[in-house]
Amino acid sequence: MKRILSGIKPTGAPHLGNYFGMMKPAIEWQEKGEAFYFIADYHALTSVHDPKALRENTRAVALDFLACGLDPAKAVLFRQSDVPEHTELAWLLSCHTPMPMLENCHAFKDHLAKNKTPNHGLFAYPVLMAADILLYDSNVVPVGRDQKQHVEVTRDIAGSINRTYGEGLFVIPEASIIPQLATVVGLDGQKMSKSYNNTIGLFEEEKALRKKIMSIVTDSTPVEAPKDPAGSSIGALYRLVAGEADVEKMEADFRAGGTGYGDFKKRLFESLWEFFRPMRQRRAELASDPGAVDAIVKAAGERARAVAHRTMERVRTAVGLR
Amino acid sequence: MKRILSGIKPTGAPHLGNYFGMMKPAIEWQEKGEAFYFIADYHALTSVHDPKALRENTRAVALDFLACGLDPAKAVLFRQSDVPEHTELAWLLSCHTPMPMLENCHAFKDHLAKNKTPNHGLFAYPVLMAADILLYDSNVVPVGRDQKQHVEVTRDIAGSINRTYGEGLFVIPEASIIPQLATVVGLDGQKMSKSYNNTIGLFEEEKALRKKIMSIVTDSTPVEAPKDPAGSSIGALYRLVAGEADVEKMEADFRAGGTGYGDFKKRLFESLWEFFRPMRQRRAELASDPGAVDAIVKAAGERARAVAHRTMERVRTAVGLR
Repeated sequence: MKRILSGIKPTGAPHLGNYFGMMKPAIEWQEKGEAFYFIADYHALTSVHDPKALRENTRAVALDFLACGLDPAKAVLFRQSDVPEHTELAWLLSCHTPMPMLENCHAFKDHLAKNKTPNHGLFAYPVLMAADILLYDSNVVPVGRDQKQHVEVTRDIAGSINRTYGEGLFVIPEASIIPQLATVVGLDGQKMSKSYNNTIGLFEEEKALRKKIMSIVTDSTPVEAPKDPAGSSIGALYRLVAGEADVEKMEADFRAGGTGYGDFKKRLFESLWEFFRPMRQRRAELASDPGAVDAIVKAAGERARAVAHRTMERVRTAVGLR
Repeated sequence: MKRILSGIKPTGAPHLGNYFGMMKPAIEWQEKGEAFYFIADYHALTSVHDPKALRENTRAVALDFLACGLDPAKAVLFRQSDVPEHTELAWLLSCHTPMPMLENCHAFKDHLAKNKTPNHGLFAYPVLMAADILLYDSNVVPVGRDQKQHVEVTRDIAGSINRTYGEGLFVIPEASIIPQLATVVGLDGQKMSKSYNNTIGLFEEEKALRKKIMSIVTDSTPVEAPKDPAGSSIGALYRLVAGEADVEKMEADFRAGGTGYGDFKKRLFESLWEFFRPMRQRRAELASDPGAVDAIVKAAGERARAVAHRTMERVRTAVGLR
């Protein structure tokens, strides 16, 4: 049975980009193998230096993931920091990671371009991610295109260590690229991301959500003129949450002219609200007993840690720490 | 009571440079406070990729340290990897360590000059060292001059985190510079170091040790000519192990001329052999029961881990992982 690993960084409450890019595929994967999903609070520390926010975001991710259909009987949803072995393995991997491999990572180059003095956590992040993956002998890592390089780094490090200490020490993982990730656009037409401040939360209040949807940036084509559905953020988001017939109807109305963007935004809001209705209900039930959510995450942490512990026993012996 | 922290990297059997630079001062410090001394096997992994060698070196360091006078009733001599909290704290510190702080470390610049592709462990080493120190709320860190910058890095990181999460989270340590460290010369007149392959082990076999001492590089001053005791490696090593009267006698003989280097080397050998005689006896006793040495180190690891655990509880709560 294949082991699947994925992680989500608790840098804020989950948004549509997280849902379609990570949570939805992860919930699908839970049927296909042994799924380990972690809330990456160690990773979040590279940018979240507010303890209250980190605690709240971590709980929000757990609650929202369960509300969206993660089944704790099938998938292990745990908090990364409940398994400190992640950091121990990261150190061991660091001793076999050539500096240029990290210097060449696009994500770090982007940070460097935006931020004159990134912290060392941002630089070392692909090594911790390699540890996240290798600790669970993961076979499959569903990732967006922007994370593909980090899975390559993981494969390179694991291969190099296997050559040094013996083949089979680490399982070499495969990336499974999630195609949707590229298509979740934010309110401003850029990729939806917390860092662009253009996100739509999964469980926003009705009024706030409506206001957000109405604020989606559009061009100034007049109401009566035909519009291009392909280039519209409204259309792109609608395709994620509306049924096929509704999508065809909207696209036809775009092309026909005579309907303003305001109308399309209302339809988007309605579909979005409907799409998340069952999850919103499940979430309200779960939120009424926060101790139960904490207990699920804690129990999962113990399951994950047992696996991590076995891996570390094997690795420590191999490298000479035992 | 002051807490003192020091570490020794098990990259080989301890040599005179380790003894006078780290072990002897550490044994003196055990009378002055609460001493925590760790065998830095996580650090050794940056260069030792041979598991058998790492295991043997780690045991050799423990055995030699105890033979030289470390008192396990006074000082906690433990193996770093028995306390994985070192690596967890290192990750948390990384998230508050600006990249330029590490890029400017002399030790890494030296590696870069010698080695085209250093591994990330060598780069991240000052962060792990900061974790080593801060984990034990250390007040005093006895170090050689070459490590002073790394204690500065530790102070900077701790200060920055205290400003973010609250003063007092970390104890700010002080470096205590060990003056002797600069004076231990190797067989070739350079600083004694495993990487220069010029070391004199503490407990070499008599014949091998004699041969090594006789191989000390000297100039070609003829036997009958006066010689300069100040610039001689023989004199420098003799001053570490011989009594005051013997040192004065050798220096006078240097200046007077008529004595060859071979004679001086014989005197050095005799003094060295005498100096380590009681430690050699103690070592033979200890080596006859290797299980006892392992048990001492294991028990110390448990003591160290209890302290580390308390620190991590405090730190995890402060940063929002609890």
